[in-house]
Amino acid sequence: MLEAALTLFGEHGVGGTTLQMIADSIGVGKASVYYQFRSKEDIVAAAAQPMFDDMARVVTIAEAVEDTGTRREIAVCGLIELCVRNRRWAAVLNGDPALDSLIESRADLTELIGRYTDLLLGAGHGPAGRVIISMVTKGIQGAVTDKAVQDVSDDDLHQTLLAAVQQLLRTASFFE
Amino acid sequence: MLEAALTLFGEHGVGGTTLQMIADSIGVGKASVYYQFRSKEDIVAAAAQPMFDDMARVVTIAEAVEDTGTRREIAVCGLIELCVRNRRWAAVLNGDPALDSLIESRADLTELIGRYTDLLLGAGHGPAGRVIISMVTKGIQGAVTDKAVQDVSDDDLHQTLLAAVQQLLRTASFFE
Repeated sequence: MLEAALTLFGEHGVGGTTLQMIADSIGVGKASVYYQFRSKEDIVAAAAQPMFDDMARVVTIAEAVEDTGTRREIAVCGLIELCVRNRRWAAVLNGDPALDSLIESRADLTELIGRYTDLLLGAGHGPAGRVIISMVTKGIQGAVTDKAVQDVSDDDLHQTLLAAVQQLLRTASFFE
Repeated sequence: MLEAALTLFGEHGVGGTTLQMIADSIGVGKASVYYQFRSKEDIVAAAAQPMFDDMARVVTIAEAVEDTGTRREIAVCGLIELCVRNRRWAAVLNGDPALDSLIESRADLTELIGRYTDLLLGAGHGPAGRVIISMVTKGIQGAVTDKAVQDVSDDDLHQTLLAAVQQLLRTASFFE
């Protein structure tokens, strides 16, 4: 059912998908969908949970490090790892307003994103640093979900993103 | 009406917005919305048109250049310029499935995107080059639409993105 829902979310966005459409696509009644998930929001939460679990691990690792530059690097490289690993889910949910709503509605996720953001911006970056962090994180999320590189292997994707991102993060002038 | 529609699209996604919601938000009847736009798709097309006009100009300029590396640079730097300039529209439409549907349904837009993609990938890049192009273009689109850098001025945003992107595009090893 999660599979069917994610396929429909990918085609119509979460907002354009109804529980009825999900029920129809797997040939069951709407009641069967309700039995497993009370709402579309529940489905989005279930699909996104593995990504948030991965992110929680990255945050724990990075917070144990003192140097803010190293923290930032762990946070960004961890993001590459988790996005590549959860490539399919990320492709569907990335950029959908439903994911933002989920985060806003759940205190644990809001806190997690807050801690992750602190790792990225902990050194108190100026405008240039914040733009680079934004470009890098959105670029990672965008690339792993881009149909144009769907045929690139997970390994190649991971390695190239890592090389590019490390090159940018080491350009100290952005973060002064 | 376009303003009201874009605000709602930003909150609910295009799929989650109805013509009735647009009518309600400006306090008119649904017929008044129909009078100006026959469908949500018409509204999306009207909102996106300035971005496509800008892209057509970039494509014309870049295609006049012989060197594939320079073409690629013009295409990417042109994207920065047009995304920063159309920052607000881009924030709403970026990543919405409705924009993909619009492009698929319009031969002129499909052709434009095809020519733009040729400029980016004309040299026949391997996996690494394609991942970089993807990260850079998605990163630009993501950064200009990121709430976290909404307070950064257009000039700072433009300048930082340009410096970062040029640094990546000049790393020849990605494009071998």
